[in-house]
Amino acid sequence: MVAKGTRRPPEPHETRLRARYAETDQMGVVYYSNYIVWMEVGRVEFCKALGCNYRDMEREDGVLLAVVEAHCRYLSPARFDDEVVVRTWIEEANPRTVRFAYEMSLAEDGRMLATGETRHFFLNREMKRTRLPQKYHAQFGIG
Amino acid sequence: MVAKGTRRPPEPHETRLRARYAETDQMGVVYYSNYIVWMEVGRVEFCKALGCNYRDMEREDGVLLAVVEAHCRYLSPARFDDEVVVRTWIEEANPRTVRFAYEMSLAEDGRMLATGETRHFFLNREMKRTRLPQKYHAQFGIG
Amino acid sequence: MVAKGTRRPPEPHETRLRARYAETDQMGVVYYSNYIVWMEVGRVEFCKALGCNYRDMEREDGVLLAVVEAHCRYLSPARFDDEVVVRTWIEEANPRTVRFAYEMSLAEDGRMLATGETRHFFLNREMKRTRLPQKYHAQFGIG
Amino acid sequence: MVAKGTRRPPEPHETRLRARYAETDQMGVVYYSNYIVWMEVGRVEFCKALGCNYRDMEREDGVLLAVVEAHCRYLSPARFDDEVVVRTWIEEANPRTVRFAYEMSLAEDGRMLATGETRHFFLNREMKRTRLPQKYHAQFGIG
Repeated sequence: MVAKGTRRPPEPHETRLRARYAETDQMGVVYYSNYIVWMEVGRVEFCKALGCNYRDMEREDGVLLAVVEAHCRYLSPARFDDEVVVRTWIEEANPRTVRFAYEMSLAEDGRMLATGETRHFFLNREMKRTRLPQKYHAQFGIG
Repeated sequence: MVAKGTRRPPEPHETRLRARYAETDQMGVVYYSNYIVWMEVGRVEFCKALGCNYRDMEREDGVLLAVVEAHCRYLSPARFDDEVVVRTWIEEANPRTVRFAYEMSLAEDGRMLATGETRHFFLNREMKRTRLPQKYHAQFGIG
Repeated sequence: MVAKGTRRPPEPHETRLRARYAETDQMGVVYYSNYIVWMEVGRVEFCKALGCNYRDMEREDGVLLAVVEAHCRYLSPARFDDEVVVRTWIEEANPRTVRFAYEMSLAEDGRMLATGETRHFFLNREMKRTRLPQKYHAQFGIG
Repeated sequence: MVAKGTRRPPEPHETRLRARYAETDQMGVVYYSNYIVWMEVGRVEFCKALGCNYRDMEREDGVLLAVVEAHCRYLSPARFDDEVVVRTWIEEANPRTVRFAYEMSLAEDGRMLATGETRHFFLNREMKRTRLPQKYHAQFGIG
């Protein structure tokens, strides 16, 4: 039995990308800030998989997802042309804030490259904190 | 004697920056799209030196400088931590379009790294082509 | 009849990517240097489709493809989350130099976003100009 | 009285940079991964101020500073053309690892934009963990 008002958090989502030459540095591996960009790629595709297109949320509802914290642990370097799996899920969500978690691994052999989290506030068009509109609650697993 | 209505184009302007680790790639040199970013740095500082702050032009007058063409010739690679001089000038300007030219060289010995041009249209806030407001004409050397 | 020693240039190749939030700027469209990065994505996938993995060429044969010129014409802005088709082909190739051409268009309706070219020299590990090894000639359409 | 072998950690160092148009996103503020790049700028200049040029350390001694963790808290958004002060110091150092801390603030009024930390291992040219050479110990405040 599930208590009234509780919802299950959405399932993790996996998206794939390929490390670009532009993303490498002179150490011969992917430069460290690019994993933070890859988290964004994972987050956008995660939201899309939930039926909650981030572009539309921003354009039509004027809700922006502002980052307030980002954290990344680097385990093994990605290299040029590596296919990378970005696994994304919601760690915690309420109408004021959402926390995403990420695992980035090599598609070829599953080797973990990096793990991370980002924490976000919802902002309106005036860049002030706001609540996530009710219609998106179910998708974010907010009960 | 200078013909009525003609103005001298503004003097070239030099700005300096330092190649970032983030800007290198696995070839051990600065990745090629970053020179295009450095042209933007040169252009912004050039405009500022003319007394025409690009930020204010965009915010207050709603005039955007949209790029329609960019061209770069790579002569010698820049490396991490190199100090680079970006020399910027206006090659051609009229109320509808402006063409900037750039020379990027090593501060240490003057070695030329790259040369380039960008061509721009003026846009209004609706992203439609517009004319550069009269008050900026003198600064851009438009007679 | 085809003259002795001539080869047909390889077919154009199409690859797809999605405009990232990271790639937009405050004008609300993709920042201009990112199209130059997208050309690299197209070029890498083009070479892969030819059976000539760029990563291996660099690692195993020590042949680097250094850019000597890049040119981009911006026709219509790409926006966040747009799916973009990068069409890449070889405009001209010989053992000393290769010129790639690109068309970037919107997957949704075919609207052309940008066209471009890059010209490259082949370099060895000492960053000196070299000739493309014979074994790659057929793939680049060098007769 | 200072115990034998202990050294005072080096003083914080401040460096300045200006937010580039390229660094903004469609939210009209600096995109979140760029603060991570700015930390690198701060770190490089900090090391230089210590008399320990990172470029030379990498080239001559084959010591690389690999990031194993990065963390950023975003307090107030930076905007295009803002002058940003990056304050960098060593939070903790020993011959195997070093932890840098950063504060990024607006030059104009001191408003804090972001704070962060990065943790690093020292690697040799084979990308294996190594100890920081003795000659750099004093500079990193390793007693």
